[in-house]
Amino acid sequence: MTKRFLHSVAVRWSDMDAYGHVNNARFLTLYEEARVAMFFVAARAQGLTSFEEGIVIARQEIDYLRPVDYGDPVRIESWISELRKGSFAVSYELFDGDVLASRARSVCVPYNLAEGFARRLTAEEHAFLEPYLEAAPA
Amino acid sequence: MTKRFLHSVAVRWSDMDAYGHVNNARFLTLYEEARVAMFFVAARAQGLTSFEEGIVIARQEIDYLRPVDYGDPVRIESWISELRKGSFAVSYELFDGDVLASRARSVCVPYNLAEGFARRLTAEEHAFLEPYLEAAPA
Amino acid sequence: MTKRFLHSVAVRWSDMDAYGHVNNARFLTLYEEARVAMFFVAARAQGLTSFEEGIVIARQEIDYLRPVDYGDPVRIESWISELRKGSFAVSYELFDGDVLASRARSVCVPYNLAEGFARRLTAEEHAFLEPYLEAAPA
Amino acid sequence: MTKRFLHSVAVRWSDMDAYGHVNNARFLTLYEEARVAMFFVAARAQGLTSFEEGIVIARQEIDYLRPVDYGDPVRIESWISELRKGSFAVSYELFDGDVLASRARSVCVPYNLAEGFARRLTAEEHAFLEPYLEAAPA
Repeated sequence: MTKRFLHSVAVRWSDMDAYGHVNNARFLTLYEEARVAMFFVAARAQGLTSFEEGIVIARQEIDYLRPVDYGDPVRIESWISELRKGSFAVSYELFDGDVLASRARSVCVPYNLAEGFARRLTAEEHAFLEPYLEAAPA
Repeated sequence: MTKRFLHSVAVRWSDMDAYGHVNNARFLTLYEEARVAMFFVAARAQGLTSFEEGIVIARQEIDYLRPVDYGDPVRIESWISELRKGSFAVSYELFDGDVLASRARSVCVPYNLAEGFARRLTAEEHAFLEPYLEAAPA
Repeated sequence: MTKRFLHSVAVRWSDMDAYGHVNNARFLTLYEEARVAMFFVAARAQGLTSFEEGIVIARQEIDYLRPVDYGDPVRIESWISELRKGSFAVSYELFDGDVLASRARSVCVPYNLAEGFARRLTAEEHAFLEPYLEAAPA
Repeated sequence: MTKRFLHSVAVRWSDMDAYGHVNNARFLTLYEEARVAMFFVAARAQGLTSFEEGIVIARQEIDYLRPVDYGDPVRIESWISELRKGSFAVSYELFDGDVLASRARSVCVPYNLAEGFARRLTAEEHAFLEPYLEAAPA
């Protein structure tokens, strides 16, 4: 059964730009917080540190549905929307209260940072990701 | 004949994250600098301030091809890859020296910020954008 | 009896710079979160919105005692260390766990942003600040 | 004869906060750009990389004299205002056009990052800093 990774991210006053809303580039920082909590903190709690030592972001897509302002934390739900031998995709939904304010997707490539080449997912990495595997919303 | 908008953006030391490369979220800030230079500064120089008073970013996509580090400025080439009555898309290529390091695309919606509704492009806005209209690379 | 304003600020992964610690400039953003929570959010809860409409920061000082890393939230204690008719100072201590990691101080000037001149504190503003008034640590 | 280190820093649109001026915390990032250009880039051009491998910022002070907005680059003049065996201070003036908009000072401590202790300035470091030594403005 599929599960989503839930993470709450505090919106900072400084996330707002001159228009008084959270800046569009800053959304990627909010999503990054959720991704880091999943792949660094939660994976490490299971003894898995290899994501931390090497994931490269190959592509990102963000849809902006509603402006987000300084105030309550946003809730980000993350799941795996694609799982291949040499890459995987994280999909996210960002909720401001009950409102879906943004969606995003990051294509990640496991990478040997020390030696500089793309590598395959290990069996442990695959096992960590699989419970979160879910089809992307239509 | 199509033209591209050329803009040079200084990379700051603080653009790097803990991996020692320009952070993936920060790329959107570099692209924003190019977009603002085009739609705010260059348009204003032609007497056109309506972009500044209302463009909403509806979607962004970024491809990361090569890591970028602190050092020389990057060169961003921007053009219009889609031009409709109620939206347009800006496409970008980011060069680090001679190397194409990233591509991106922002879907923009003209918006009446004061009254809160999507609007159509004005004739002046269309005339500003059209010389930059170019098919996206295959 | 003096009280301090307590605020917890989540440290983001992106707060780290290329050295792998929270960047020294970013400390001011963490302190800003505490100040905004006090002068915008807490004051507004008491019906006082005039800080929000006009405080100018005239000077800031930060002492860095210990590096701070991505991980648990930091706790910021804020109080008023100087209270004059035309300015006041906020002092802060930033704790990482039990460790005092940084101290700072912001000199604030009430300002009429619309008309562009420094003004005096109102009686309501003074009444809000006074319970937090405390001598700075020696 | 004393010299100052001159550095021009582009102001980004995203440096502005919800008040439409460059955010007060962001000034430290602008000063950081000047400091990095001096201690990393200019020193490296003279064969000196030891600053890069270890300077810790112990304290910073910033005076905000005029708001700075998105637009032309600012010019930062840096010099050494204190030179001791185990620490030195960099002072800065930030000019927006001809207007002195801000002053700052960073107290820097040479540090052995690998082994975790404060160290003395080397003779080469001292020789690099000395030509920039100037009394702080009264």
